[in-house]
Amino acid sequence: MTGLVLVLNAGSSSIKFTVFAAAPEGPEPIASGQIEGIGAAPHFFARDAAWQVLVDRRWDGEDAPRHHAAALAVLIGWLDDSLGERPIIAIGHRVVHGGPDLAAPVLVDAAILAQIEALVPLAPLHQPHNLAGIRAAAEAFPGVKQIACFDTAFHRAKPWVADTFALPQRFYAQGIRRYGFHGLSYEYIAASLAAEDPALGAGRLVVAHLGNGASLCAIAGGRCVDTSMSFTALDGVPMGTRSGQIDPGVLLHLMQAESMDTDALTRLLYHESGLKGLSGVSQDVREIEAAGTPEAEGALAHFAYRVRREIAALAAAMGGLDALVFTAGIGENARALRGQICEGLGFLGIAVDAERNRANAPEITAPGATVRVLIRRTDEERMIARHALALLRDTVCAG
Amino acid sequence: MTGLVLVLNAGSSSIKFTVFAAAPEGPEPIASGQIEGIGAAPHFFARDAAWQVLVDRRWDGEDAPRHHAAALAVLIGWLDDSLGERPIIAIGHRVVHGGPDLAAPVLVDAAILAQIEALVPLAPLHQPHNLAGIRAAAEAFPGVKQIACFDTAFHRAKPWVADTFALPQRFYAQGIRRYGFHGLSYEYIAASLAAEDPALGAGRLVVAHLGNGASLCAIAGGRCVDTSMSFTALDGVPMGTRSGQIDPGVLLHLMQAESMDTDALTRLLYHESGLKGLSGVSQDVREIEAAGTPEAEGALAHFAYRVRREIAALAAAMGGLDALVFTAGIGENARALRGQICEGLGFLGIAVDAERNRANAPEITAPGATVRVLIRRTDEERMIARHALALLRDTVCAG
Repeated sequence: MTGLVLVLNAGSSSIKFTVFAAAPEGPEPIASGQIEGIGAAPHFFARDAAWQVLVDRRWDGEDAPRHHAAALAVLIGWLDDSLGERPIIAIGHRVVHGGPDLAAPVLVDAAILAQIEALVPLAPLHQPHNLAGIRAAAEAFPGVKQIACFDTAFHRAKPWVADTFALPQRFYAQGIRRYGFHGLSYEYIAASLAAEDPALGAGRLVVAHLGNGASLCAIAGGRCVDTSMSFTALDGVPMGTRSGQIDPGVLLHLMQAESMDTDALTRLLYHESGLKGLSGVSQDVREIEAAGTPEAEGALAHFAYRVRREIAALAAAMGGLDALVFTAGIGENARALRGQICEGLGFLGIAVDAERNRANAPEITAPGATVRVLIRRTDEERMIARHALALLRDTVCAG
Repeated sequence: MTGLVLVLNAGSSSIKFTVFAAAPEGPEPIASGQIEGIGAAPHFFARDAAWQVLVDRRWDGEDAPRHHAAALAVLIGWLDDSLGERPIIAIGHRVVHGGPDLAAPVLVDAAILAQIEALVPLAPLHQPHNLAGIRAAAEAFPGVKQIACFDTAFHRAKPWVADTFALPQRFYAQGIRRYGFHGLSYEYIAASLAAEDPALGAGRLVVAHLGNGASLCAIAGGRCVDTSMSFTALDGVPMGTRSGQIDPGVLLHLMQAESMDTDALTRLLYHESGLKGLSGVSQDVREIEAAGTPEAEGALAHFAYRVRREIAALAAAMGGLDALVFTAGIGENARALRGQICEGLGFLGIAVDAERNRANAPEITAPGATVRVLIRRTDEERMIARHALALLRDTVCAG
């Protein structure tokens, strides 16, 4: 296959994309970018693999793309102009929620589209935009296979004890489960480590995907065992602006004693909490570190503490661990915070080499430590492109 | 002091009591019992220290005690008749919530009473009954010192990182904190272990108070470091009928998609969840074990899994652990479940001797394991009696 794979991630006001060439050794990115500010002041920006700017365009008039379909039309026009003769042979979509049943990437047809649509109540803030992206792409590329890849799919492998809440069983049957998210990131990390070191890939990993959204995942033998996010992307460790785990009694109290309704609670827990709420400064670790106030230091200390607690809890889910892997923005770059997280985890066999940690080295294990500590760059888009090509190959070979 | 200490625990429809003699080596119980069914069909029951029944009385007529003050009058009349000449020199009260400031037992005066009353919004289901008990006792024993002991007090020692939620800081200032409960039980266990083995008492303990209400506590050097319950007694591990930790997003979803209000959510999460909700059988571990259905086995496996996760997380709070202590109904008696909890914790140095575990032995550590695993009977009432006597002594000596 000499064609291209387009990977789309359609959010509430943006479409992110990466174009991959289907090289023999796997998909290789040739361009990526986004159209953001859809519906307001759109901005279209793209770079090639060498980080050269390919397009940087803003609109302020009547011709600005006002919705996802229009934005996608702009993107497609640009792809036609700049990619030359190479055809788009598959389009991979990131979809936040696959529900209880969609446990692997799927070729989109009418039945799958209906299934994805039925899951909107589980992810009302994201799923409708993912759907809009699929529909717009289907219209623009009528003959091209569309593949949906779910953030929840990787976690469907985990055992029931890690998937249920302690609620009456009918809720589990209804779909109130600990789904978990960031699954494409975890799958990419697990696959990369298995490729680079099969013994490690067969071992017990805790992967800490720490970005603006943050979660951790226990992976044994390449399969998910447990993860810190659950029914929604609100649970688990604190995040940029999200609270993470919180006593359900706090919500009941705020409703009764402070008359907060679901909108007010949603705003508080999703947008005003986490590092931003605690620091009073920012959701960005660099800005919090720069502020250096007691509140800022407290916010980072609390974040590190909750992540440390979760690393140990996930190790318990596997009966121990062989490696701890940091990834995503904070995981890959926030050296001081990463060091702080690992402090006091010596009882698990975790110790970090200060100098390697400062250098963001791929391996930061201290000499003599029994658990490897690694830093890896995640690549959810490449994971989607791989899935798209694999499904396309299966279809072609079966057909 | 040759007098008696009366310990009272006033709940919504019951008053539990224990009478202690102030022996030189500490308070010794001479009688205990309860008046339950206050307001409905009251039942007064008491035994002595040799487990002999002292009273077993039911009312069905006009003379039945209809409220806490009347029930306490019945109790006092009985104490006068049966305890002879020995005077009650102090009354200790179990109070569920001490808020951010009441971090130790206190002699009750008007200011303290007002402070306890101001905390009613933090524990609306329990605090009013605790207050009613104090008021009724003050009226019945006008000259006798009243001492309030708080379930939250022991946990006030824990560091801020373990006390805060990742919410805007104003919520912490307002009192939305991870208080923790079962503090009198943890204090009793920590004190007992320190008395029996000072090195162990100075070490790092995880105490699992597993009863119908269940929580765990990390204790280092005799002081609380972290605990699994937080703002309310709903958080942490699953319980008899309570859910324990649950994604706040589940509450938001049930409010929006299922139109559940705070009353419906409170009923669900406090009374219909936990072991009862999962098993569909009972909240009682013995009945669940007897049922032996897949749902019953699942409920126990999930409970064990969540407790195991929390043991590891609390070990992380202390940088490791020296002993794991089981206490309260399930912790002291549910041998199979206790064994199940400890499975897979070998990576922490925890291993259980099967035979000793079956025998509910005081120490069930497997040979060669580096972490001691103990079973201890808790005694919150004795802890309250000790506090009452100590405060009385301080008052007498200062006065």
